[in-house]
Amino acid sequence: MIIVLKPQQNQEQIDSFVQKLTSRYDVTVNTWVGTHSTVLGLLGDTTAIDDEYIAAQDVVEAVRRVQEPYKKANRKFHPEDSVITLPGGQTIGGGRLALIAGPCSVESEEQICGVAEAVKESGAAFLRGGAFKPRTSPYAFQGMKSEGLELLSKAKKKTGLPIVTEIMSIEHLPLFDDVDVIQVGARNMQNFELLKRLGRLDKPILLKRGLANTVEELLMSAEYIMAEGNQQVILCERGIRTYETMTRNTLDISAVPVIKRLSHLPVIVDPSHASGVSWLIEPLAIAAAAIGADGLIIEVHNDPPHALCDGAQSITPAQFDSLAKRVTQVYDMVQAL
Amino acid sequence: MIIVLKPQQNQEQIDSFVQKLTSRYDVTVNTWVGTHSTVLGLLGDTTAIDDEYIAAQDVVEAVRRVQEPYKKANRKFHPEDSVITLPGGQTIGGGRLALIAGPCSVESEEQICGVAEAVKESGAAFLRGGAFKPRTSPYAFQGMKSEGLELLSKAKKKTGLPIVTEIMSIEHLPLFDDVDVIQVGARNMQNFELLKRLGRLDKPILLKRGLANTVEELLMSAEYIMAEGNQQVILCERGIRTYETMTRNTLDISAVPVIKRLSHLPVIVDPSHASGVSWLIEPLAIAAAAIGADGLIIEVHNDPPHALCDGAQSITPAQFDSLAKRVTQVYDMVQAL
Amino acid sequence: MIIVLKPQQNQEQIDSFVQKLTSRYDVTVNTWVGTHSTVLGLLGDTTAIDDEYIAAQDVVEAVRRVQEPYKKANRKFHPEDSVITLPGGQTIGGGRLALIAGPCSVESEEQICGVAEAVKESGAAFLRGGAFKPRTSPYAFQGMKSEGLELLSKAKKKTGLPIVTEIMSIEHLPLFDDVDVIQVGARNMQNFELLKRLGRLDKPILLKRGLANTVEELLMSAEYIMAEGNQQVILCERGIRTYETMTRNTLDISAVPVIKRLSHLPVIVDPSHASGVSWLIEPLAIAAAAIGADGLIIEVHNDPPHALCDGAQSITPAQFDSLAKRVTQVYDMVQAL
Amino acid sequence: MIIVLKPQQNQEQIDSFVQKLTSRYDVTVNTWVGTHSTVLGLLGDTTAIDDEYIAAQDVVEAVRRVQEPYKKANRKFHPEDSVITLPGGQTIGGGRLALIAGPCSVESEEQICGVAEAVKESGAAFLRGGAFKPRTSPYAFQGMKSEGLELLSKAKKKTGLPIVTEIMSIEHLPLFDDVDVIQVGARNMQNFELLKRLGRLDKPILLKRGLANTVEELLMSAEYIMAEGNQQVILCERGIRTYETMTRNTLDISAVPVIKRLSHLPVIVDPSHASGVSWLIEPLAIAAAAIGADGLIIEVHNDPPHALCDGAQSITPAQFDSLAKRVTQVYDMVQAL
Repeated sequence: MIIVLKPQQNQEQIDSFVQKLTSRYDVTVNTWVGTHSTVLGLLGDTTAIDDEYIAAQDVVEAVRRVQEPYKKANRKFHPEDSVITLPGGQTIGGGRLALIAGPCSVESEEQICGVAEAVKESGAAFLRGGAFKPRTSPYAFQGMKSEGLELLSKAKKKTGLPIVTEIMSIEHLPLFDDVDVIQVGARNMQNFELLKRLGRLDKPILLKRGLANTVEELLMSAEYIMAEGNQQVILCERGIRTYETMTRNTLDISAVPVIKRLSHLPVIVDPSHASGVSWLIEPLAIAAAAIGADGLIIEVHNDPPHALCDGAQSITPAQFDSLAKRVTQVYDMVQAL
Repeated sequence: MIIVLKPQQNQEQIDSFVQKLTSRYDVTVNTWVGTHSTVLGLLGDTTAIDDEYIAAQDVVEAVRRVQEPYKKANRKFHPEDSVITLPGGQTIGGGRLALIAGPCSVESEEQICGVAEAVKESGAAFLRGGAFKPRTSPYAFQGMKSEGLELLSKAKKKTGLPIVTEIMSIEHLPLFDDVDVIQVGARNMQNFELLKRLGRLDKPILLKRGLANTVEELLMSAEYIMAEGNQQVILCERGIRTYETMTRNTLDISAVPVIKRLSHLPVIVDPSHASGVSWLIEPLAIAAAAIGADGLIIEVHNDPPHALCDGAQSITPAQFDSLAKRVTQVYDMVQAL
Repeated sequence: MIIVLKPQQNQEQIDSFVQKLTSRYDVTVNTWVGTHSTVLGLLGDTTAIDDEYIAAQDVVEAVRRVQEPYKKANRKFHPEDSVITLPGGQTIGGGRLALIAGPCSVESEEQICGVAEAVKESGAAFLRGGAFKPRTSPYAFQGMKSEGLELLSKAKKKTGLPIVTEIMSIEHLPLFDDVDVIQVGARNMQNFELLKRLGRLDKPILLKRGLANTVEELLMSAEYIMAEGNQQVILCERGIRTYETMTRNTLDISAVPVIKRLSHLPVIVDPSHASGVSWLIEPLAIAAAAIGADGLIIEVHNDPPHALCDGAQSITPAQFDSLAKRVTQVYDMVQAL
Repeated sequence: MIIVLKPQQNQEQIDSFVQKLTSRYDVTVNTWVGTHSTVLGLLGDTTAIDDEYIAAQDVVEAVRRVQEPYKKANRKFHPEDSVITLPGGQTIGGGRLALIAGPCSVESEEQICGVAEAVKESGAAFLRGGAFKPRTSPYAFQGMKSEGLELLSKAKKKTGLPIVTEIMSIEHLPLFDDVDVIQVGARNMQNFELLKRLGRLDKPILLKRGLANTVEELLMSAEYIMAEGNQQVILCERGIRTYETMTRNTLDISAVPVIKRLSHLPVIVDPSHASGVSWLIEPLAIAAAAIGADGLIIEVHNDPPHALCDGAQSITPAQFDSLAKRVTQVYDMVQAL
């Protein structure tokens, strides 16, 4: 961390500030006196230092962080790629493209089992399906809740596919015992109490990037989970909010290689929420596979026009079958280049 | 709601779609057949209709909502301004500028009581102070939690100022009995389970706009609270995320008159979080008072350089005293124009 | 175009407004009277209708455009893909990935000819190089100007590669005789006088998307060129401005399939400006090739650390050679799926 | 400027890089060797140093600018507020609120003279009116061009109000002799060739902030004009592009105090373009006056529903009269606090 002091500080003020820093944090401070200003360099573990605390000091002009503020999610301290492995042997990360597919919401046993069997047939290794649904409107369908979770369990029993589903409140956690991967949605990416609680589980967490959150904030939210002990975090790029209205969100495809450079955690892409329209899902999925995403999470519905939510961005099992073949070919081809 | 159908639909397809609409929703459908396309107009209460469900239909080209998707927060159905009145007689809305002030976080009895007395003296009608703090980093100070709430109660007993403080999880609700106004922070604006639970209380809720949420989404989140029964909602503009980096966020000052036109709920402004730097707080507070905000929520700390959080954006009690006088004069002067 | 009238308009007001519309524009107006409001549907060519003129009318509540506001760039009226063919036989569009490569700025004869030969060897079909450079700072290197154009001509003579270079002012046009494709930079995307002038040339124009322009605005700027007669427009996605700071801009990869659906014009991607960092160029180029971009424009410099501009985002000829092989393989493989 | 070097550079590499810096720029370099990395501090005039050139060097990890990259627009080197004074005695800056008013476009002699007389009567000191109009669509009204400029001159002769009007191309400059303040529109804020040309005039330039440009970029564009000799630059905040759709743009009200802190140049606000709707203009104008903007530029049309452009955001002379009185009162009151 580099701290630029305001011009014309006397030696006493500087000394007193340096002493405050060394007594408060476990760092060594190097002072470099220039003609017009003095610059301090802090060495040691600066992760715990609060930029704002520093910026609020009378003598400080500017603070520049050199080190990343995250540790456990940081590739520097964990150079090898992390691979998430489930009891059934399914993996995310490690050189194979993981396909997670299923309906936006669970609607009936027939629906979820039907879709599960279809996507498994097409190569999906995980079943997604919403039981608790975050909807902008209180008047929109909110999901089948605990009943939805039970139906997911039935589909899992039938197909063997592990379940990926979203949690919306700590209070619902007891219902998630049979869930294999717990998803934190974009709107809860900075629900820190929820993150801390999930950090005490021994279960993979799929953490989606918030609508307007930076890559660094996403990694800090992963750090919340990991700091509590749970190292099984999967990150998900699902489009960010911009001024463009042609797509529901703007897929930040660069986030995939950027995150992989900064962190060892696996990164998947959600082309369904990134686009909001079904015809865009395949091209975006192909781009994501080509750029090296570790997986894709895709909304598949047996009957999109009758879906109780997100029908406009769902594809049919037949479309998914074609997509699955293509993205796998693209992924494998690029990996082999 | 206006639905544009895809070109070249035959009469049977159109009839079947119209029948689906009228059987599913309580609406009348008017069909208008043009040369190139057919347009349907839906009359009745379209609040419960899911745009996405419509957009997913095979025959549909585009959906345009004419009515707002919120009802209880809508000024059309409630033309009079809502005024929030506390048991102690303090009000938000109704033609007086409400000042809410206090430290980012509660740090000690001496600190919170000292600040409370100072801001009361300067004209604040409410005491703010964080006990549970949402921090980007898990390694940053997370607040004094239940102990912080107890200290707020002590300060309230001493000064009579009602308490405004943030809740971060439903689980903490039992601790909030003595809290007068419960704040939902920007990061939890779409934590729908929390909103629903707060909607079953009989206590004012201060709902902050999310970092990247639209005014309509803010009103929809208010609707979540109100649909459960609690009509005492105060909205807060606190800056949105843009590409500009000179300020921590970009204060969307237009949101104040826009929300007041769309809704009857009171709207306050948070210049501290909108700017992130102390010297900007007074000019932004003056602009907010001039444009007709119903209140201001401002971070005041007795010793900003030693604040455990947000020191860079805190002002001192002396600065607040000067600010309070000015903003009140500006507000009253503009109201009298 | 659909116009929703304000509630409670009497028949006379409506009739008078309808008459104004039909006398002013070549459209037929259909009136559809609902219980609460009246909706007008305009049929005919609504391209020339100004949304704002309509919105300003006293009786109007809202205007919704159904038709796109562009015609010549619109795929609806030109279903076949446009292919740009140069006199030397080089093409952009039509199923082959066009590679445009060269330095950010021309710096010397040795440099530009050296890079030109290298990139030609690696498969580039076009040479890019800046002679007039748009720089944020007036104190930064502004390009070699006319001398730079002369050096580009020398490199063209040596290698046969057609020249792609940026114009910054109409006044410079006489210098561009030997330029094969004139580039309009992001900052000039809405320099309408320049667009109109280029529309009177018989030469391909490479039009870059502005930093914060929508896809529709990009197509409207293409329309400016095409409306003057020049149909040879190539569109370029080069990243948009968002709140994310890890990359210089955010590559909007979805723009490629979105533009191709709306327009028949070829679309290329600029991974160099989209990322701003050299190590990201190859992954973004691969994603762009996979999603079906018609070409790539890439900054290649023989000695990036000594480049007079954009060194941080330039790659070496050796890196370009490897990239060129990979992106071509990816493009061809996905096209063949 | 602070340069953080990559870890594990040997002394020779560091020395060679330092030598390159001192030979290329007029700076002194201080080296500060930490345990893990080496940091260089550059002293002297770093304005001319290209961040990107530095970032492209092999040994460099990160570059942080401490000094602002602009000089002539910088308040540090010119602490006094600049005041723009016209031959007729009208001023912008210096403690009086300047009102600039008139129609979006000049449409007829009757219209422009009528509006000019009305706004003068209400206290406007400048007449605005578009002769060359930047329109998104080539099919929209493009202004009366030279004829429009002639009509502006007639209105000036009648009322004595100096003319403020937009230039769209260097080629039109000969037509602007009788124009008193030349406006550079948002879309041309980074049309650097135009800025340089205007920098050689002896006439005030009104420079509008681009749709997605930062405050720093706005100041750099002012620097382009000032570096050529013309110090009479007026800056204008006119709303920036964000994801919010309730207003056409988002007025960045904080930009006013931020620019005033960084620069000595006067800053005005354009509430018409910032909002895009007429009923928002007065509240935004009041907020701008309250926060200390040096002036307001407002679209006034004698007959908004028949305006050939921007009718939706124009107000009538009667509305302007009321607004002018209020904003002047608010400005004077806040200045006197």
